[in-house]
Amino acid sequence: MELLDNLRWRYATKKYDPAKKVQEEDVDKIIEAARLAPTSSGLQQFRVLVISNQELKEKIVPIAFDQQIIADCSHLLVFAAWDNYTEERIDGMYDFTTDERGLPRGRFSSYTDRLKSLYLKQPQEVNFVHTARQSYIGFALAIAQAAELKIDATPVEGFNNEQLDALLNLKEAGLKSVTLLPIGYRDTDGDWLAGMKKVRNPKEDFVIEYK
Amino acid sequence: MELLDNLRWRYATKKYDPAKKVQEEDVDKIIEAARLAPTSSGLQQFRVLVISNQELKEKIVPIAFDQQIIADCSHLLVFAAWDNYTEERIDGMYDFTTDERGLPRGRFSSYTDRLKSLYLKQPQEVNFVHTARQSYIGFALAIAQAAELKIDATPVEGFNNEQLDALLNLKEAGLKSVTLLPIGYRDTDGDWLAGMKKVRNPKEDFVIEYK
Repeated sequence: MELLDNLRWRYATKKYDPAKKVQEEDVDKIIEAARLAPTSSGLQQFRVLVISNQELKEKIVPIAFDQQIIADCSHLLVFAAWDNYTEERIDGMYDFTTDERGLPRGRFSSYTDRLKSLYLKQPQEVNFVHTARQSYIGFALAIAQAAELKIDATPVEGFNNEQLDALLNLKEAGLKSVTLLPIGYRDTDGDWLAGMKKVRNPKEDFVIEYK
Repeated sequence: MELLDNLRWRYATKKYDPAKKVQEEDVDKIIEAARLAPTSSGLQQFRVLVISNQELKEKIVPIAFDQQIIADCSHLLVFAAWDNYTEERIDGMYDFTTDERGLPRGRFSSYTDRLKSLYLKQPQEVNFVHTARQSYIGFALAIAQAAELKIDATPVEGFNNEQLDALLNLKEAGLKSVTLLPIGYRDTDGDWLAGMKKVRNPKEDFVIEYK
């Protein structure tokens, strides 16, 4: 089915059927959509944590303001972005890129020098604003891929980032959590939002055209 | 075609054929994907500007570090987010939502009161970090929709936001520019990136699993 149909089908599921699990091959497709996401300068400044362990999901419920969807979903995806830019991270990705393309390392050194001169002098918080934005591209594509597979997903920003980072040892991985994406199958009867009309601003209020 | 195939097909086009224009019905589909994007609390904190006017595109070239793709593309999409949260904006969206759903206005007032108590006391910069993130969800879905239609698109963050906001009078609209998305058709011969392998970190480096 087409993307627009899939986007019309999806909604922010508020109640999951805990008995229904997403097949691993479908989880892989959702991760793959996030992995293929374009990112600034191709640096892929984010990672995805995939949590199917029930005990761990339940530990996250109180960190996510007691949202029961975290426990009831099949898999919880955590989108986490680089906590900062470093020379090693920039060089690491570009060394990998040149290797993959059969080019000499350093082929893009004038470009990476510019990236370093920009990012390495900015405060950590400013850099994280940028890396976190990239994670939203992968987040959106994962949502779209879930919808294509008729798998429900709930975009979640409401949780205590510091507590989740501590629980998942993200600091040691050089990451900070940004968003959560529980995926699974809706429990329609228990979901107050399931029957509600999807509401968006009409096109004429959403778009400004310059012809 | 499926989303994953579309994401593998797309790349950040570096050279457009200025003679090839995207049909308006396809532009509408790309905008529609962005319009359907999920956003935090359903507030739809961003808008899309669609620029096909050649003179205006050319005025943006120097604002976008002389990137010729801005002039050569068929349409330039500008993703712009709310510059801040206000009581009027939050109430406006929720009044519209309850009207559309046939519910009494104020049905979600305990929820909107919580949103206001959170956002209205935060500094403008903090709120804009949040609204800008939402625009990336629409940005990503627009990229995916373009790819489904075999329309090329180039995600662009590199431009002078303040200058673009001034040129497009975005301050008056309560918006700040976040990203650009030139769309059109590639000029393969003139594009150094067209033949290059797409490079992403392998799945084992991208995903952390907790089973």
